[in-house]
Amino acid sequence: MFDFKIEKGLVLPLSSSDLKSVKLSRQSCATATFGKDQGLVIKCKAAVAWEPNKPLVIEEIEVAPPQANEIRIKMVATGVCHTDLYHLFEGMHEGGFPVVLGHEGAGIVESVGPGVTEYQTGDTVIPLFLSQCKECRFCKNPKSNHCEKGWIADRQGEMSPAESRFTCKGKKLLQFVGTSTFSEYTVVNQMAVAKIDPAAPLDKVCLLGCGICTGFGAAVNVAQVEPGSTCAVFGLGAVGLAAVMGCHFAGAKKIIAVDINPEKFEMAKVFGATDFVNPKDRSKPISEVIAEMTNGGVDFSLECVGSVGVMRSALESCVKGWGVSVIVGWTDLCDFAARPIQLIAGRTWKGALFGGFKSRDGVPQMVQSYMDKKVKLDEFITHNMPLAQVNDAIELMKNGKWYIYILYVYIIEDLQTELYKDKH
Amino acid sequence: MFDFKIEKGLVLPLSSSDLKSVKLSRQSCATATFGKDQGLVIKCKAAVAWEPNKPLVIEEIEVAPPQANEIRIKMVATGVCHTDLYHLFEGMHEGGFPVVLGHEGAGIVESVGPGVTEYQTGDTVIPLFLSQCKECRFCKNPKSNHCEKGWIADRQGEMSPAESRFTCKGKKLLQFVGTSTFSEYTVVNQMAVAKIDPAAPLDKVCLLGCGICTGFGAAVNVAQVEPGSTCAVFGLGAVGLAAVMGCHFAGAKKIIAVDINPEKFEMAKVFGATDFVNPKDRSKPISEVIAEMTNGGVDFSLECVGSVGVMRSALESCVKGWGVSVIVGWTDLCDFAARPIQLIAGRTWKGALFGGFKSRDGVPQMVQSYMDKKVKLDEFITHNMPLAQVNDAIELMKNGKWYIYILYVYIIEDLQTELYKDKH
Repeated sequence: MFDFKIEKGLVLPLSSSDLKSVKLSRQSCATATFGKDQGLVIKCKAAVAWEPNKPLVIEEIEVAPPQANEIRIKMVATGVCHTDLYHLFEGMHEGGFPVVLGHEGAGIVESVGPGVTEYQTGDTVIPLFLSQCKECRFCKNPKSNHCEKGWIADRQGEMSPAESRFTCKGKKLLQFVGTSTFSEYTVVNQMAVAKIDPAAPLDKVCLLGCGICTGFGAAVNVAQVEPGSTCAVFGLGAVGLAAVMGCHFAGAKKIIAVDINPEKFEMAKVFGATDFVNPKDRSKPISEVIAEMTNGGVDFSLECVGSVGVMRSALESCVKGWGVSVIVGWTDLCDFAARPIQLIAGRTWKGALFGGFKSRDGVPQMVQSYMDKKVKLDEFITHNMPLAQVNDAIELMKNGKWYIYILYVYIIEDLQTELYKDKH
Repeated sequence: MFDFKIEKGLVLPLSSSDLKSVKLSRQSCATATFGKDQGLVIKCKAAVAWEPNKPLVIEEIEVAPPQANEIRIKMVATGVCHTDLYHLFEGMHEGGFPVVLGHEGAGIVESVGPGVTEYQTGDTVIPLFLSQCKECRFCKNPKSNHCEKGWIADRQGEMSPAESRFTCKGKKLLQFVGTSTFSEYTVVNQMAVAKIDPAAPLDKVCLLGCGICTGFGAAVNVAQVEPGSTCAVFGLGAVGLAAVMGCHFAGAKKIIAVDINPEKFEMAKVFGATDFVNPKDRSKPISEVIAEMTNGGVDFSLECVGSVGVMRSALESCVKGWGVSVIVGWTDLCDFAARPIQLIAGRTWKGALFGGFKSRDGVPQMVQSYMDKKVKLDEFITHNMPLAQVNDAIELMKNGKWYIYILYVYIIEDLQTELYKDKH
């Protein structure tokens, strides 16, 4: 299906080398055809996870029109994130299937439901797994980016709330974390949509829907890295690299990148890392190695692996007195732990979801930072693939757990959609 | 030995009822006799811990003159703190004996060594277990109250540094945490001495040498409790009550006092507690009880027990998004732990030594707050005893682990000392 591209207004065949360089961008929303399905059910392609631990299946699904306060979005690009894999292979909650995965996407508003006033057909948007209703006590508190509404309020402890506008073969499909970006169309509550610069390349800024904001924000918003400080980032996946970038952005003078795969160090350097430690090369505990490199420990450390052992090392690598360690990596299968003296000695242990960004406010700002060349996104991308290859993307990501495989599954518009053109 | 008092300039016999009401204060340092021993060894009484897990022995000891940068202090009053008991009964490090315990005292400068310019004979002072050299990177950093100098730098991990000016029966006695207040005289480095208001009653403000600053500061400096906030304090010993007082001082609107001994609730009310929870009366986990009382959890929680289980409960009792939990109680025998989601959901876990107060700056300010009636001290005191009864004090404290036994061991001046008089 992914055998064409739109270039200078022309539909052209697309080679595999093109797949690595394709730049999708939205030029204009004022097309005659876009929005023609308003109020109607749209039939489109989506990757359906029928059951846990099985490959996804590309299916034709029905996407009902948006209801009150909802927005139907034509997806243009989406990343694949470990959280999608977690639901499929680890969470494996029977009640969480069948589901449309994906939560790191970007697209265009196709139509809006009653009561939506801030968004209209043609707006360029990023759907958000973390809502921002702007009304609850969390949204009103500047210290927090939590929100009491959105999908989280729907089914406690599950990532697939019952409410969705998807059906397939007569069955209801669940919506993953309120987004479901592995579909050509999705319907999202307006509390969970960020309107972004229409000039932004969607196949890049879709990354800001999850991992990059998570890592970058953990350094900038949560750790609050200071100019001239010393930092250590544990784990150099996409989130870890974004954390390195955040430390660099905040003016850290020494950024120690820690990973058991030394192949990642070159990439970490691109994002600002100054020093590199491979725990496999050291006989001492990593906290001692870092203490020796930094006169007693770093000012800030960020755990971007999702391992409780690494969380402990990251805390112990902080300097006493004022060191701050942030848990960024996701795991909730067992306890993290340390000796009380670690905190009594003046260290602080924090954590955050989505890098502490209030989602609807923060994502457009991050898009702007990318457009202003203050944050990098292109450098994170190693693969571009069509939706039909989503299982290949998932396999690459699973097998490359310790490598930088940041995969982009383009959900390529069909020929009717004349909204995008290759910038090249 | 404690059979007299000085009242209106007269030496009077002292009854046991007097022991409960005696108020020691320093009127003037300009006596002819005080300081007469400058440069000489002073022989005086001290409570010596010859070995772990044994009663202390009142001995005549020799206290050498202060060396460079040192100050010899005539102790007037001292508290007994759990940390003294910890060293005697739990730490029990063979290398930590024989030692003179005590670290919560107040007294008068008897003489000073070479290089001491900020203190002079007659100054009213509180010796400090936490130094503040004002020169190291920790002292210069406003975020921390640690100091790289002082006794901690001497013997890593031990509370009795080798250096001391004490001898007894030809043997060197160690100095406990750089202070050793269970002696009529002690010699302390000038980095570890706070000069305080000469009008302050030493038998009250001696409390500021440890526990009260620890609890109060944990709320005010470390948790940074905010006006109108909700708080929970776990454990209502002296430190916990001081934490309650700190929450109240900072303007918290709801202060939930948690203890398994309901007898403590009346006292907690005196310091500002508004609500009381006895975990023994509840079938649910205490964090759920508190969540129900506070619409999801408190803004700030303080663990003042020194139990890793309570540390976990205190964290889990905080509201997601911005809740801050502070470890105040001391233990280091096992790990504290929690599920990562607790921090990822936006909570912060902190800890501190001495309530985050920079010691030489903070203690005189706290003395002033007491003199200005902004903080309470008198209400903490349940017993007054002479030094000779130190073992009774220790026994009371041991057995009353879950009760408010804050014991005052007066080190009563001999007849030569005409510095003090009963205010009554």
